[in-house]
Amino acid sequence: MSPEDKLKELGIELPAPAKPLGIYVPALRTGDLVYLSGMLPLKDGALVCTGKLGEQVDIAQGASAARIAAINAIAALKAEIGNLEKVKRCVRLSGYVASAPDFTDQPKVVNGASELIGAVFGEKGRHTRIAVGVASLPLGSPVELDFIFEISD
Amino acid sequence: MSPEDKLKELGIELPAPAKPLGIYVPALRTGDLVYLSGMLPLKDGALVCTGKLGEQVDIAQGASAARIAAINAIAALKAEIGNLEKVKRCVRLSGYVASAPDFTDQPKVVNGASELIGAVFGEKGRHTRIAVGVASLPLGSPVELDFIFEISD
Amino acid sequence: MSPEDKLKELGIELPAPAKPLGIYVPALRTGDLVYLSGMLPLKDGALVCTGKLGEQVDIAQGASAARIAAINAIAALKAEIGNLEKVKRCVRLSGYVASAPDFTDQPKVVNGASELIGAVFGEKGRHTRIAVGVASLPLGSPVELDFIFEISD
Repeated sequence: MSPEDKLKELGIELPAPAKPLGIYVPALRTGDLVYLSGMLPLKDGALVCTGKLGEQVDIAQGASAARIAAINAIAALKAEIGNLEKVKRCVRLSGYVASAPDFTDQPKVVNGASELIGAVFGEKGRHTRIAVGVASLPLGSPVELDFIFEISD
Repeated sequence: MSPEDKLKELGIELPAPAKPLGIYVPALRTGDLVYLSGMLPLKDGALVCTGKLGEQVDIAQGASAARIAAINAIAALKAEIGNLEKVKRCVRLSGYVASAPDFTDQPKVVNGASELIGAVFGEKGRHTRIAVGVASLPLGSPVELDFIFEISD
Repeated sequence: MSPEDKLKELGIELPAPAKPLGIYVPALRTGDLVYLSGMLPLKDGALVCTGKLGEQVDIAQGASAARIAAINAIAALKAEIGNLEKVKRCVRLSGYVASAPDFTDQPKVVNGASELIGAVFGEKGRHTRIAVGVASLPLGSPVELDFIFEISD
């Protein structure tokens, strides 16, 4: 099943790629790698929630936000490469989680994104990952994700 | 116009590459990619300002510091590749902004670097980017930047 | 001397690779690059220390934790590529240091990892690096490291 079919089965419609918050592009290809810019949990132009893990945002909300940021990443990827069947591998997911000083469950939050990538890309979605707790994020977002995909034409 | 000419037009003289703060090299090439180490807003061996965004450092100062860190990055890149006309693309800029807990304008700070890269490299300077707010940075720096460039010989 | 012999000389026995804390793989190869997931200072399944630099953890403990995380990284790398003599270069080390708001000696902490990589891989261990202070890390770890290695078969 293609990633596009899998998205349909999951009931996910890819949004229009989010407008960058600064002077940069959402995605670019170098060799066989596509780098994506930092992705936020935006829906219809607004964050689905704001605040930090361990404060205003709980783990379930954070994981759900990470899932939405991952959907935005897939939208940016598709806008860049045209066809998600070109994805050979999700190489790297970096998850930045806005965290209260004592919050240490970043992996559970970023799993919201990793699960979606696995559901959409199957074996090709198995990626390396970092998850770190940061002081704060653009717009007050609880999570920001950064991806590298390997592509084959 | 070459990046070197563009720097001259902007009145920017590249400094000697900053001495690493630890056991690492400022830049290295793997395949067609050049990775740079974390760049700080050092000038003549000292930070142009210290502190965090949302505390001692305002957005304009932070953006100016990011611009200086980007100039240091270009200096490290030139020391590695010899000639900036070899740059095919700025692939990635990661901007780490030392942030007070409630500061959420990291993109405006990192824009100080993105604007300079665009001014010097034109279309080839269009990059992907992340901007995150971190707890603190080496020497009390307000920003640290990390770049990947694609090179063609 | 091979990296394996060097490890023996240093009295280092590589542990079994740590189990990922989420839905991801410890390492993967794309082209000539091997990406590793975030590595923690785990020993026999537990962190060697917890807390932040500038609070519960001092620089010497932090550097020692970074060294252990780097040993775990080498174990994950060896599990992926089989033979450490395939390493052509350590391309990148990203060091995330859980930091009290006023701690600014991240480079000294990450040096614990850089020294080990240099000791094991010699000239091939000379890498680019970032070191940033983050708000908190998984399980309360004081450091998390992320590596990219270049491989030749």
